[in-house]
Amino acid sequence: MRAYIANEFKTMNHIILPKEMIVRLEEIVGQSFLFFDEETRKNYGHDETEDYNFPPSVVVKPANTTEISEIVKLANEYKVPVVPIGGRTGLSGGALSIHEGIGLSIERLNKIEVDEQNLQAIVEPAVYTQVLQETVLEKGLFYPPDPSSRGSCTIGGNVAENAGGARAVKYGVTKDYVLNLEVVLPTGEIIWTGANTLKNSTGYNLTQLMVGSEGTLGIITKIVMKLLPKVNNNILMLVPFFKAEQACEAVAAIFRAGIVPSALEFMEREAIDWTLRFLNDDISINIKDEVQAHLLIEVDGNYPDVLFSQAEKITEVLEQYDIDEVLFADTEEQKNALWKLRRAVGEAVKSNSVYKEEDTVVPRYALPELLKGIKAIGSKYGFQSVCYGHAGDGNLHVNIVKGTMSDEQWKNEVPKGVREIFELTVALKGTLSGEHGIGYVQKNYMDIAFGKKQLSLMKAIKEAFDPNNILNPGKVLPDII
Amino acid sequence: MRAYIANEFKTMNHIILPKEMIVRLEEIVGQSFLFFDEETRKNYGHDETEDYNFPPSVVVKPANTTEISEIVKLANEYKVPVVPIGGRTGLSGGALSIHEGIGLSIERLNKIEVDEQNLQAIVEPAVYTQVLQETVLEKGLFYPPDPSSRGSCTIGGNVAENAGGARAVKYGVTKDYVLNLEVVLPTGEIIWTGANTLKNSTGYNLTQLMVGSEGTLGIITKIVMKLLPKVNNNILMLVPFFKAEQACEAVAAIFRAGIVPSALEFMEREAIDWTLRFLNDDISINIKDEVQAHLLIEVDGNYPDVLFSQAEKITEVLEQYDIDEVLFADTEEQKNALWKLRRAVGEAVKSNSVYKEEDTVVPRYALPELLKGIKAIGSKYGFQSVCYGHAGDGNLHVNIVKGTMSDEQWKNEVPKGVREIFELTVALKGTLSGEHGIGYVQKNYMDIAFGKKQLSLMKAIKEAFDPNNILNPGKVLPDII
Repeated sequence: MRAYIANEFKTMNHIILPKEMIVRLEEIVGQSFLFFDEETRKNYGHDETEDYNFPPSVVVKPANTTEISEIVKLANEYKVPVVPIGGRTGLSGGALSIHEGIGLSIERLNKIEVDEQNLQAIVEPAVYTQVLQETVLEKGLFYPPDPSSRGSCTIGGNVAENAGGARAVKYGVTKDYVLNLEVVLPTGEIIWTGANTLKNSTGYNLTQLMVGSEGTLGIITKIVMKLLPKVNNNILMLVPFFKAEQACEAVAAIFRAGIVPSALEFMEREAIDWTLRFLNDDISINIKDEVQAHLLIEVDGNYPDVLFSQAEKITEVLEQYDIDEVLFADTEEQKNALWKLRRAVGEAVKSNSVYKEEDTVVPRYALPELLKGIKAIGSKYGFQSVCYGHAGDGNLHVNIVKGTMSDEQWKNEVPKGVREIFELTVALKGTLSGEHGIGYVQKNYMDIAFGKKQLSLMKAIKEAFDPNNILNPGKVLPDII
Repeated sequence: MRAYIANEFKTMNHIILPKEMIVRLEEIVGQSFLFFDEETRKNYGHDETEDYNFPPSVVVKPANTTEISEIVKLANEYKVPVVPIGGRTGLSGGALSIHEGIGLSIERLNKIEVDEQNLQAIVEPAVYTQVLQETVLEKGLFYPPDPSSRGSCTIGGNVAENAGGARAVKYGVTKDYVLNLEVVLPTGEIIWTGANTLKNSTGYNLTQLMVGSEGTLGIITKIVMKLLPKVNNNILMLVPFFKAEQACEAVAAIFRAGIVPSALEFMEREAIDWTLRFLNDDISINIKDEVQAHLLIEVDGNYPDVLFSQAEKITEVLEQYDIDEVLFADTEEQKNALWKLRRAVGEAVKSNSVYKEEDTVVPRYALPELLKGIKAIGSKYGFQSVCYGHAGDGNLHVNIVKGTMSDEQWKNEVPKGVREIFELTVALKGTLSGEHGIGYVQKNYMDIAFGKKQLSLMKAIKEAFDPNNILNPGKVLPDII
């Protein structure tokens, strides 16, 4: 029985955790929060990334920051990997225990404390995003970030991946709401990264370094979130385009007209068709055969007259394109139905076939060129893709579906195509991931976005925080720098 | 003649630059952009921080990124300090050549390229903030950050210090508009930190690590800025309070009423009196003797009716406090006059006396307690303070004026008082600087905001970027960690 050094992991199939370490783990969390059974380990071995399952050697469910600190100290002593696990809705494999070790589920840290006076909330990482939204709404407050998986993703995961969602176009992403973080470092030390203030020019921005670091620099145990006053009204419209590229073009035109919508979502025809089938007639929309894509556009605010005027301005912009009749959601039910449709696209597309999802992002005016390029690359390598996403901020999710491709093609050709898609994205001044993170599945494409120097700086940062490489090893940074 | 090692600097009075290094410097920038004369060196030896002047050994004015890279490579080879110098309006001494060496003025890098399609601008660091604002406004676009020194501060300095200004309360600070940076690293290598996208979850956030790093991690040579569609209307009101603490209380109440003003500025009575005298009857306002403080409140938007309704709501909130008549600025001239008054406060207060300025920031509801505490600490240590600033985001500038204090009191007592003010700030969940940075004058208070661990992490980051400690040495981090 022995401990393993982090850089040996790649050659190993199984870690054997030293018995004395397990005894001490049990002392920390108690027997009932330590799981070795295969079912639990498998259950914590996946997120929503393709069909991967990398079970940890053991699942622990600590009660609080102190227990997490003790677990991490222990792991650091034995040089055993620790992988923080949240809602397991990630799309880049951030929560996969690819080198086994301790799967540290933060699920028991789920308290919310709303500071109504300062429009802030102190949130523990296991709080579901939707629960945070609804809790603060009851107090007249608004937490804007709104990932499609909001019902099952956790705030801790949102911070770790810098999650976005449909409202990012107007309100920004998770990082724009994080003021301060309590973090357990890979050495077990507990720090706060900043202050509970809206502005901060006090030293290097450790808070923003932690946001989006995908559980590789520290385990986030408390998040101080900025909130806004709630917004009372919105108008939602679904716009069918006869040409998909024109839908992309319209996105930039709406902003040029001086409107900042609260959501501006793009869905290719296949995305909407597959989702309607997936939802099984739960929603019915008549779509002409010739329609290639839709934009789902929302404007929000407190003054209905302003919203009507903005919606009118948007329809004026849209008239220059080849579109079918715009559908306005008249009731809350219709709005919910349209959002349900949009939120289900990812799941629907994936339910059809083995798939890979890329999270490309470009300056929004480059969207039509990106879409065209992706289709051409698909033709070249023989794969079909279904594209949808947050067009308002140039964030296009590309679902590559296996369909009838042979396993060999899937294994050998698709990665070449993915590399070309990313090369195109970067050539258009974009990058690999807008909101899903790099995690496990994108890490070996990082050389496309960054040169050796940037990657070396990132590696040096990782080493400064985590000298023994125990925290979520094998994520974010490429295998070879 | 010899080169000096960075950590020897503290014991030296003067660096002697090796002759061969000077020859090579001249080859890089040309003789006419290299200055050794005392006048130029003194001119580049100060910013707006107290009465400090630390001239560099030589001032260089490179033409572009390539020349900057070559200069830095040379400095790194000879281990000579390089201090990037912008508009010299800084208030924490970031641009002071405290260890002499090369004063690198970025003034020749002053181009702006507006990308109207993507609502972005690529800005070189020497562009004045006001010039950027006006250039993009001509194209119907809006760059919100608005430091009081906007006419003379540069975008490079704004990014280096993470500058704020009056509109931060609604629109955020400089960091919220920086998408991507071209940076010359202390090794002379040139990198881009990210991508030109609104969202980015691709590796550690080097962009946000660079913002606010005060020229210690790299020299910023290009900034990709996010822009917004321009906003057409605003309402500006000046509210006199009979009790200063009530003015602070009203700030949180306005947000609780669901309003996010585009500016919410606080000025103590002394601040406004001194400024009216300083501006020498350029502006005249009648203020009752009993008025202790003012709030300057702006709401902005495109729909005048909405603005009227918001202004009405604000006055309703204000009615619960002990206030004098609200002054609404009816014309553009009146608005400009009020803003001129507000912008001149810093200069006016400082023109009266030797001073120290602190840039305290707390959660906004804690403002009354902060103000009360500052006055009590002043009484204890025998100093007068004039307070004003961006109350909407809890950012209170504290000007400690020497007035009739003895030199000994000023030297020995005031630093103790400053330490207590910062301790209070941090106890209120705030921090040392909201928008001015730590630089030279606040660095030895950093232990109040951060423990040893955070400071060690920051130091490790500095070492990863700048192994020879040549870039702006002796700033941000405390002398002893």
